[in-house]
Amino acid sequence: MIQYPNRKSNKELEHKPISHVGRGMSLENDLNDSNTYYLESDKAVIHKKPTPIQVVKVDYPSRNCAKIVEAYYKVASTTDYNGVYRGKAIDFEAKETNSKVSFTFKSIHEHQINHLDAVCRHGGIAFVILRFTKFDETYLINANILIDMYRQPNKKSITYQEVQEMGFLIKQGLTPRMRYLDVVDDLYFKN
Amino acid sequence: MIQYPNRKSNKELEHKPISHVGRGMSLENDLNDSNTYYLESDKAVIHKKPTPIQVVKVDYPSRNCAKIVEAYYKVASTTDYNGVYRGKAIDFEAKETNSKVSFTFKSIHEHQINHLDAVCRHGGIAFVILRFTKFDETYLINANILIDMYRQPNKKSITYQEVQEMGFLIKQGLTPRMRYLDVVDDLYFKN
Repeated sequence: MIQYPNRKSNKELEHKPISHVGRGMSLENDLNDSNTYYLESDKAVIHKKPTPIQVVKVDYPSRNCAKIVEAYYKVASTTDYNGVYRGKAIDFEAKETNSKVSFTFKSIHEHQINHLDAVCRHGGIAFVILRFTKFDETYLINANILIDMYRQPNKKSITYQEVQEMGFLIKQGLTPRMRYLDVVDDLYFKN
Repeated sequence: MIQYPNRKSNKELEHKPISHVGRGMSLENDLNDSNTYYLESDKAVIHKKPTPIQVVKVDYPSRNCAKIVEAYYKVASTTDYNGVYRGKAIDFEAKETNSKVSFTFKSIHEHQINHLDAVCRHGGIAFVILRFTKFDETYLINANILIDMYRQPNKKSITYQEVQEMGFLIKQGLTPRMRYLDVVDDLYFKN
């Protein structure tokens, strides 16, 4: 347990979920946290989509209570995050890897790539957020770069070096945890 | 069973789900059907978000098989549909009523209204699609009109007459079932 210099802060922190202060928390938690901050500060309206679940059987143990007793996870047909920022539609997928070498394309579905492509084509802002957990580094990559690589017949992954060269490191802070809209500003709104 | 004049069409239709040809299908089916058409014809990228479900317990009856055995429906914090159209973020909620008189605000959550408001503020296109099933009429109403009404202290519903006056009737066809983007074109893209 890390000892904080300020007792009050330490006490305050006890009431927060561990994910807000600890290292090694998931990218999803970080992004949800950041999106809440962006929403509350009225900077953007970006939400994670619910995980698609196929409900098979529902019980009603009492009035007004529906209990799902058989259901299965479905493969997502789109990306995890979308919303509105500075008048533009924003859409992205976020993934993390334990590898120090590369990010394998196996963990991105082809229909997610096609979805990102469609968003670009229709004038939205589309990108992918990749975290290399071992380095605690998170990058934002323009969707078109990743789409092109993904569609190369013999390319099965994007290397860490390529991500460093073609992506943009997202600054991490306390609030928001991931300042990814700073990168979006630089990348899509600077003329 | 309706007899179609053309045998071939009839045979083709057998392979389609009944919802594509029958009357009285749900608004959700109609919109999903229309969104698939808009997606496949590369006119827009609009999807229904999955229903948010809180998973409590998952069993693994075999390898690679996750069976959810306890889960509950959660209240949606946003709207059901969103995506990209003509470079703009598009976001809407769809509801139907059996009433011939009015549409009650009870069936729209306050955070959904706040979400639509935020989408408007950030430059997205936001609206609500309302169907009066008894008349088989479906209207598109600009979100701001509904938001204003919803926030009037003593107003508990929008009347059928108000919907007729302030909304726009969506033309119905075979493909797509609901030509709601025609209304969006007229309402948001005409200068």
